[in-house]
Amino acid sequence: AMDGAPPPTSPTGLSAYVAISQLLGLTLLATTGAWLGRYRGGMAWHSPLQFNTHPLCMVLGMVFLQGDALLVYRVFRHEAKRSTKALHALLHGLALIIALVGIIAVFDSHRTKGIPNMYSLHSWCGMATFVLYLLQWLLGCGFFLFPGASFLLRGRYKPQHIFFGIALFILSITSCLLGITEMLLFKISDSYSHFVPEGILANILGVLLVTFGLVVGYVLTREEWKRVPLAEELALSMDFKTLTEGESPGG
Amino acid sequence: AMDGAPPPTSPTGLSAYVAISQLLGLTLLATTGAWLGRYRGGMAWHSPLQFNTHPLCMVLGMVFLQGDALLVYRVFRHEAKRSTKALHALLHGLALIIALVGIIAVFDSHRTKGIPNMYSLHSWCGMATFVLYLLQWLLGCGFFLFPGASFLLRGRYKPQHIFFGIALFILSITSCLLGITEMLLFKISDSYSHFVPEGILANILGVLLVTFGLVVGYVLTREEWKRVPLAEELALSMDFKTLTEGESPGG
Repeated sequence: AMDGAPPPTSPTGLSAYVAISQLLGLTLLATTGAWLGRYRGGMAWHSPLQFNTHPLCMVLGMVFLQGDALLVYRVFRHEAKRSTKALHALLHGLALIIALVGIIAVFDSHRTKGIPNMYSLHSWCGMATFVLYLLQWLLGCGFFLFPGASFLLRGRYKPQHIFFGIALFILSITSCLLGITEMLLFKISDSYSHFVPEGILANILGVLLVTFGLVVGYVLTREEWKRVPLAEELALSMDFKTLTEGESPGG
Repeated sequence: AMDGAPPPTSPTGLSAYVAISQLLGLTLLATTGAWLGRYRGGMAWHSPLQFNTHPLCMVLGMVFLQGDALLVYRVFRHEAKRSTKALHALLHGLALIIALVGIIAVFDSHRTKGIPNMYSLHSWCGMATFVLYLLQWLLGCGFFLFPGASFLLRGRYKPQHIFFGIALFILSITSCLLGITEMLLFKISDSYSHFVPEGILANILGVLLVTFGLVVGYVLTREEWKRVPLAEELALSMDFKTLTEGESPGG
């Protein structure tokens, strides 16, 4: 778009939905911060408040950054595929590191307080999601970033990558909702049913998480908003296809 | 398929995935029944056990039947669209009635025991899902079953109907997971962290719910498994399109 040609336009509505998703994402972080800061004593690493790092890291990494990593092919639809791919991998990598810090926080805090690990449905769903997310990231790098995988292999893996990518994003949000419910029933089980402000705020955080998932999911699955290959990519993939089909007899 | 022609075949793999989904669905119901029967005293309407009707109705209606209603276009891909549509609406209608019984059970049980309603994240998500599911069913009947809506209007609503249909199915499963977590923390909060059998069984129920959602979601979104319009439907829709476009100038 720097060569003097008119800048390519995005489909109507897409920018509005993306803007809403980003506003929702920031509201998610602010609401999580407000809950932990106002009602749970704030955050600190080497202290009894270490646990509170967990919810913020998981919402930031596994929801906001993961969601934005999924959106890059829609947002940067006119950029070269190669740089968009790199950004996609980078955002997911950042999400993984932040989530890892969040997981260390909860294991560390449990060890200090003598609380057992991995007994709850939240921990089962959350850990399964994190491990599969790491696996998906490694597979994604192996298939799409490194030059080894053939055009044919990439084409076969791509639909699986997309399906499991969206599934892991949904599972991440689900795990957050389970975590919110657990935390409320651990901390305010006596007053939760009296509609105390902390309970309502945490419920609203849950509703915001669902809404963020719905908006991102809508942007990702809307047929007209899918990234259309650039002219030069189409030409290249044609060449590749001819080459590949020429190589394997009966392919 | 009754006219002596060879029966049309389904895409490879589809039948296997559908069979797995049905096995998972039945396992879901059996696991829910086992949990309630073995650890929660069973079920009865006019008794303190009335609450236990709630989980079973929600898993049966909002997960198993709703999931099967979504699958009918894949399973009965060679049947007339009209009868498949009717079955789709019927299964969703049945799911709605069973879910309503499940909701009445929890409100009734809360009234008897003096427990407040609608304070938890589970209740917020669950009630929102049920109300939107009812709305989606009414809109679906209005647009697709009654003859009033034009071909153009149906075509515009259809992608929204599909997106929200899958979203509500996912939200239903999420609400079930929240309900499982709530129930465990209400009933066995002291022993849950010691890996007691009830906790593990209920966690497994949660994992089964997620797996059912993944299998149904995979069948629904796999491009090659989408229902292809029958020859006679294509001809009809062409006629309709010509008619519609002929009617409105500049359409």
